[in-house]
Amino acid sequence: MKVFTSHAALYTDYYQLTMAQGYYLTGHHQVRACFDYFYRENPFQGGYVVFAGLSDLLEILESLRFEKEELSYLATQGLRPEFIAYLNNFRFTGTIHSVREGEVVFPMEPLVRVEGNLIETQIIETLLLNFLNFESLIATKASRIRFAAGDRRVVDFGLRRAQGLGGIHASKAAIIGGVDATSNVYTAYHYGLPVTGTQAHSWIQSFDDELTAFRKFAELYPDRTVLLVDTYNTLHSGVPNAIKVAKELETKGYRLRAIRLDSGDLAYLSKHARAMLDDAGLGYVKLVASNQLDEYLIRSLIQQGAPIDSFGVGTRLVTGNDSSALDGIYKMSMCADKSRMKFSENYTKTTLPGIKQMLRYSDGGRMMADAIVASDERSTDVIYHPFFHDQKSLLKGFTPEPLYIKVMEGGKGLLKLPTPQESAAYVRERLQCLSEEHKRFEFPHKYKVGISQKLLDLRHQLYDEIQSKLF
Amino acid sequence: MKVFTSHAALYTDYYQLTMAQGYYLTGHHQVRACFDYFYRENPFQGGYVVFAGLSDLLEILESLRFEKEELSYLATQGLRPEFIAYLNNFRFTGTIHSVREGEVVFPMEPLVRVEGNLIETQIIETLLLNFLNFESLIATKASRIRFAAGDRRVVDFGLRRAQGLGGIHASKAAIIGGVDATSNVYTAYHYGLPVTGTQAHSWIQSFDDELTAFRKFAELYPDRTVLLVDTYNTLHSGVPNAIKVAKELETKGYRLRAIRLDSGDLAYLSKHARAMLDDAGLGYVKLVASNQLDEYLIRSLIQQGAPIDSFGVGTRLVTGNDSSALDGIYKMSMCADKSRMKFSENYTKTTLPGIKQMLRYSDGGRMMADAIVASDERSTDVIYHPFFHDQKSLLKGFTPEPLYIKVMEGGKGLLKLPTPQESAAYVRERLQCLSEEHKRFEFPHKYKVGISQKLLDLRHQLYDEIQSKLF
Repeated sequence: MKVFTSHAALYTDYYQLTMAQGYYLTGHHQVRACFDYFYRENPFQGGYVVFAGLSDLLEILESLRFEKEELSYLATQGLRPEFIAYLNNFRFTGTIHSVREGEVVFPMEPLVRVEGNLIETQIIETLLLNFLNFESLIATKASRIRFAAGDRRVVDFGLRRAQGLGGIHASKAAIIGGVDATSNVYTAYHYGLPVTGTQAHSWIQSFDDELTAFRKFAELYPDRTVLLVDTYNTLHSGVPNAIKVAKELETKGYRLRAIRLDSGDLAYLSKHARAMLDDAGLGYVKLVASNQLDEYLIRSLIQQGAPIDSFGVGTRLVTGNDSSALDGIYKMSMCADKSRMKFSENYTKTTLPGIKQMLRYSDGGRMMADAIVASDERSTDVIYHPFFHDQKSLLKGFTPEPLYIKVMEGGKGLLKLPTPQESAAYVRERLQCLSEEHKRFEFPHKYKVGISQKLLDLRHQLYDEIQSKLF
Repeated sequence: MKVFTSHAALYTDYYQLTMAQGYYLTGHHQVRACFDYFYRENPFQGGYVVFAGLSDLLEILESLRFEKEELSYLATQGLRPEFIAYLNNFRFTGTIHSVREGEVVFPMEPLVRVEGNLIETQIIETLLLNFLNFESLIATKASRIRFAAGDRRVVDFGLRRAQGLGGIHASKAAIIGGVDATSNVYTAYHYGLPVTGTQAHSWIQSFDDELTAFRKFAELYPDRTVLLVDTYNTLHSGVPNAIKVAKELETKGYRLRAIRLDSGDLAYLSKHARAMLDDAGLGYVKLVASNQLDEYLIRSLIQQGAPIDSFGVGTRLVTGNDSSALDGIYKMSMCADKSRMKFSENYTKTTLPGIKQMLRYSDGGRMMADAIVASDERSTDVIYHPFFHDQKSLLKGFTPEPLYIKVMEGGKGLLKLPTPQESAAYVRERLQCLSEEHKRFEFPHKYKVGISQKLLDLRHQLYDEIQSKLF
């Protein structure tokens, strides 16, 4: 499904275009380059990230081009006729290796490797970062909410406070991360996702009394009525009226599906509402709760024994709340057959040079450590901490699994892109292989990621070369 | 410019459609209704919000319709043929009063009043909230960054970590709030904004040495070169090489525009870099700084005397950082000629009933207090705190200014929509009328907002009516 392909080529930083023009005008543009996508810190002070956004990115790259009107505009913004002519025929023809959509990943790991000519690998940077950073952020948040909710149902209600059109991909990434359904019709339509919804306070307010509002709704949707019970007073009005309507539905052969609590103390109200429903013989009526929920509140409600069957999660899911961005970056690792490295006064911001790939080591299905290795290494017995090189780990006895798959070659996608539901199944499977300590919310145990001896040597060599030039 | 009009009708919560169908099937859909948009808490623990998003919303509402393929989809999602037929002819025909785009506003103030039939006023809720909440959030953040930066240049570099396509409107809202230019080509193209950019580390890395990379760039863009000086070592390599290139440019009659610092301690590095440039007789070369900047860091850098001329602000601007959403809501205030009010166990979550408007009271150009009044009140001598009714303020001697303008009637826009730059000029003008204490970052002085006697009476009356039914 095409959600955003028109004008996608302009969804970039202006310097990508001025640099590309520079490469073109200096005759550099046919030089081969390699870039890595990686991030430095787990969001939410968590222990992992769920990688997402790849399918959308690949779909856009396949059809990436500059339209006539866009080129006319760029000609007014300092780009020269000969380069405009080049852009007119521009297509992305690079090759991409990547971990799978839905993979569970960790800081410093190269997740996507883009190879091609200098212009095409550079010009897609902003688009790639925008899509991968955001979808991975939200898929990760959703996986945490799923972790807290256990088997209870979780629904995305966040569109009204999503960051503008960011809501399109937020709702999709939420499904990848483990949410069951969304209220977002647009995203459900474009990606074929389960869509759902209940009723708003305005429905209740538009009738002269709550009971009439409930009755009318139940008449219209007798097989799927969820009644919002907090417009006037949850326990004195909403729940008693819902019970009346449930009894009326029973006489017609239907069952009220659920009531929804949207304010007040959800632990207190859910227990009392549950008791009132049970006393009325309505043990089958489920409880839906919403109102500023996230993984912490859901965990707390469950710990308090709140008999809530389904959580509606909104703003804090679709924006990431206080972790509103994943810090992913895209750095050059090779150019014109030479390994490249970005330096920094902060050693932990230096990059990993060379063409690399990822191996995951497991022990009877349990993830033990990930190794960043050179692209021609099939395994490694030892890994070194990416920055504290004295820290090393032995991998003997564990089974390596290559994490990269080639997803694009010569600008053509090589895979049938997974649906969000298929990616969600993969996330579930992978998170089951990750120990609980890494999934913990508070000070999660750090998962081991290291580099091979070969990469360590390459880094030392480049570091020495630069240092010797500087001092 | 049309940025998002196709499929906009589906950018909604599913329950808007099931409720609308309910109104239609119960014959309620021609009933007249009125809804208010307002928010409860200032984001960023700040003292105000810059209202934005109105122009985009009005443009979308004018062309809002359901396409054939969308209706076929909705028919598979529980909507009935007779209502699908209704949606096929659906147009928004309501009337909208609103404060101006760029207005400086405060919690609990009804900012937008939507009147029309029950279906059209209900069905636009999600779209309205999504656009107004997000653009207002980012315009507010930008205004704070502008406040901290004073007259120094501020540029939006945030697209790579924006929340997906939320970046489209983030960059526009940033301009409204006071940022000078953006790196986002898409948004610059669609809204006619100033676009800008420098160079990335990869440009430097793609050449065998930094000096060559700088020289090549300066040859290509001699009149607008900004050199990124931190790829290898800022003070030992980047700045000395930039000075060489600046001297070479001088021999050709050009001046190096600026150097950019993107890592390390920006206060320390900017002072040393400035001294090195000045010692080389390059007092005209400006300093650009970037790297996780926001209003707090910019204020701190300026307080430390960092000689930075231009700030590149990214992630924390375009996402709002830890305040990632404005909590705006859209609540029914009138239906079928009766005032409506949502109740809550939390009194501060009850809504303001009736058809209202906004008056702003000033004293010699300085904003003193805002009054929420009934739509037929032209002034009020006293206002009451919206919840603590014993707290009242006298407005005698101050001059009232009506804040609402009618922006849409019968679904047709009544205004030439302002450009982002025009709205930015309005923001500047209005913020000058707001005392410094309200703009302070830490515990800002709360701006006075109250309701008229007439609204207070209406609220008491409705509250009593409901209470008497409940107990």
